Amino acid sequence: MRTVLLLALLLASTPFFSQTEDEKQIKAIYDKALTDGKAYDWLDHLSNQIGGRLSGSVQAQQAVEYTKEQLDLLGLDRVWLQPVMVPKWMRGTPEFAYFETKPGLTTNVPICALGGSVATPDGGLKAGVVEVNGIEDLEKLGREKIEGKIVFYNRPMDPTLINTFASYSGCVDQRYSGAAEAAKFGALGVIVRSMNLRLDDYPHTGSMGYGDMPVNKRIPAAAISTKGAELLSATLKLNPNIKFYFRQNCKQYEDVQSYNVIGEIKGSTYPNEIMVVGGHLDSWDLGDGSHDDGAGCVQSMDVLRLLKETGYRPQRTLRVVLFMNEENGLRGGNKYAEVAQDKGENHVFALESDAGGFTPRGFTIDASEENLEQIQGWKGLFEPYLIHMFDKGGGGADIGPLKDGNMVLVGLRPDTQRYFDHHHAENDTFEHVNKRELELGAATMASLVYLIDKYGTIPSKKVKG
Amino acid sequence: MRTVLLLALLLASTPFFSQTEDEKQIKAIYDKALTDGKAYDWLDHLSNQIGGRLSGSVQAQQAVEYTKEQLDLLGLDRVWLQPVMVPKWMRGTPEFAYFETKPGLTTNVPICALGGSVATPDGGLKAGVVEVNGIEDLEKLGREKIEGKIVFYNRPMDPTLINTFASYSGCVDQRYSGAAEAAKFGALGVIVRSMNLRLDDYPHTGSMGYGDMPVNKRIPAAAISTKGAELLSATLKLNPNIKFYFRQNCKQYEDVQSYNVIGEIKGSTYPNEIMVVGGHLDSWDLGDGSHDDGAGCVQSMDVLRLLKETGYRPQRTLRVVLFMNEENGLRGGNKYAEVAQDKGENHVFALESDAGGFTPRGFTIDASEENLEQIQGWKGLFEPYLIHMFDKGGGGADIGPLKDGNMVLVGLRPDTQRYFDHHHAENDTFEHVNKRELELGAATMASLVYLIDKYGTIPSKKVKG
Repeated sequence: MRTVLLLALLLASTPFFSQTEDEKQIKAIYDKALTDGKAYDWLDHLSNQIGGRLSGSVQAQQAVEYTKEQLDLLGLDRVWLQPVMVPKWMRGTPEFAYFETKPGLTTNVPICALGGSVATPDGGLKAGVVEVNGIEDLEKLGREKIEGKIVFYNRPMDPTLINTFASYSGCVDQRYSGAAEAAKFGALGVIVRSMNLRLDDYPHTGSMGYGDMPVNKRIPAAAISTKGAELLSATLKLNPNIKFYFRQNCKQYEDVQSYNVIGEIKGSTYPNEIMVVGGHLDSWDLGDGSHDDGAGCVQSMDVLRLLKETGYRPQRTLRVVLFMNEENGLRGGNKYAEVAQDKGENHVFALESDAGGFTPRGFTIDASEENLEQIQGWKGLFEPYLIHMFDKGGGGADIGPLKDGNMVLVGLRPDTQRYFDHHHAENDTFEHVNKRELELGAATMASLVYLIDKYGTIPSKKVKG
Repeated sequence: MRTVLLLALLLASTPFFSQTEDEKQIKAIYDKALTDGKAYDWLDHLSNQIGGRLSGSVQAQQAVEYTKEQLDLLGLDRVWLQPVMVPKWMRGTPEFAYFETKPGLTTNVPICALGGSVATPDGGLKAGVVEVNGIEDLEKLGREKIEGKIVFYNRPMDPTLINTFASYSGCVDQRYSGAAEAAKFGALGVIVRSMNLRLDDYPHTGSMGYGDMPVNKRIPAAAISTKGAELLSATLKLNPNIKFYFRQNCKQYEDVQSYNVIGEIKGSTYPNEIMVVGGHLDSWDLGDGSHDDGAGCVQSMDVLRLLKETGYRPQRTLRVVLFMNEENGLRGGNKYAEVAQDKGENHVFALESDAGGFTPRGFTIDASEENLEQIQGWKGLFEPYLIHMFDKGGGGADIGPLKDGNMVLVGLRPDTQRYFDHHHAENDTFEHVNKRELELGAATMASLVYLIDKYGTIPSKKVKG
């Protein structure tokens, strides 16, 4: 009877013991992050000593060197640079724009060139304006109304969507493809309302592309601040014949050498199962890229340090990867996946933080149902930290190329309400990152990595079975 | 058979229909708040046109007039001012402090008088310093080590608590009672580390009290910025004999007349069941009180407007109450409850927003188990808005005096990570409130008020049965 009771107690207590151990380890991670985090200091350096880190820039190279140096100091098993060729686009001198209601009567508006755009002619470009609510309007208007004009894309982000990334997705085609599409109808240039939910004076840049359009057909594209867009639109309603002038001398150069920065802790038991945690080291050039994505880089770096400092030795190989060139090319993400495949590496898990350094709310998970359920089963462990989102969804741009139908891809999901106030704009700066919010994100990531490492991922039956 | 089927369908569909109706109404509220909210504009005026609204000040009176005027414009059934006498304490000229490591070698540190403190002597107060980790240390040190000294309370807020209000609670006794307690041991004054989780240069004020200590025994109390506290503490470790000097000429005046501002929509079906939604109109004087608690006031005002504009007519009487003097007296909250009792009014529900204008995360609920369960049963309706906290807990200071063991008291719970960076300090200002976050809070409050109004509260069996 005693033995049976003991056995029953043992059996009953096993999950509790494990639960307690996980609770303890996760508490140790959060405590460490909040009392002795390194993420904020690293971000201070990246943002305030280096600044905006556009691919191919001196600052991007400085960021590579700085983060490698800092990872070296952590005493990981291995730190290295992974070469990758990246595009180099430069903004040149500050852009300038106005609209002219009658000859000599002009109103300046804040603009910035979109990343990848061609320049205007040297003296600038001046033309009539046709406002549209999106690419679909071009067809309706036809070449007749567009030819020789500047197309003004003014569809705002939908403020009623609670997830502001969904609002962004609903608009960003104007920015990415607006120029290429308008050029087909004979437009001379495009001006795109900034992807910003707030009315303010900051133009927000971001990538755009011309597809396979010949260089001599490409037309310049710039973003206008949301207040500028509102003013331009209101003025056009009063006077559809106003002219818009803008000048930018941005330029695309030859690709240059750059690097992904990688640090690794070798797995103690399953060294061939690789887990990745990362963000992208490049940023746009207008601000200092604190939220996008300095935050994700320093959080990812701190994940390894937090596990190490709390005495946790991963069973699986854990890598921090600071990807280069997410913003205008994704070359770093593609290169990392390519090398992994060439080497036949077995990546089981990747976690990306690329949605700002705000209070973490949870994760989006791109995985099989079994893996999704396993992660959702850990919900209770995260509850004390107010982490409540465990939704099906994308992991992140940089880790996307790793996707193989078997591994688990996860994105950290911070609060999104303020993100697009800063995204790709001059005010994406260090003072808008809160230390605790950043640290909570790092701890949340480290906790998930710990659980994944401890319990493993569930291999897909189709692949394995 | 057909009838049975129809009945079954009807029965089965009833909850779904209702669910859909609630979902629709709540969506309408959120959409309205995010596309046509008024809270942010009202807050702009309160913060930037009026400013800090300390009880008894000209600005507090201006805020009473402005908010009444704005409520008048909403076309409610009734808007009125409820007179209440409030304490009047004034800071006087800016405070000044330094520590002296040797005669003539001084270092200035940022301080501010605590609300309710007496002044220092005209020429200031200079004395040796004894650092303590809290009130409990006084007894250990004894009169011998404290008499003639300035007591420096330096227990920091605990950074490992995820809910920063819990960290605040763990420290605020130093601020509230530190002077009264230290005076018992012969201290000449007290300096209290600011209730701030961040290291910065802002001193944070807040209320303190002397209990029934005779006026001539009272000693002055000031807050020091967290960086100042760290510097002072580090210096004391090197040289325990340094002197601290501070000067403040704050003063308590006679009580003055002020008002709670109240607006009401009469209930269509149960006019005698009263629901309150509110915040406090007074603030501290250093910043403009945008988060504490301008945000709560404008959100509460918008709750009535949002319901009205989405076409919802409450069955119960709904009142917005902007309470006066939460910060240093709670006279408005006490007066409101007193008048309610005198008139025999039946308050069934009160909701307060007094935790900043940040992204709402949920509610704390002070109610019977039945009412708690009813509210928790609505969790699914709030999920699309990322509202996930439905915890047992306090409602709020101003609505506290209404508590009668029967009614439902609820506090809005926004994200707390940044709150104490700003709380009671010079940087509690408008630019730190995000429009969407503020609006989401108002919509979250309005949605709960809608549900409470529609389904009613559950009367306590003890009282009714």
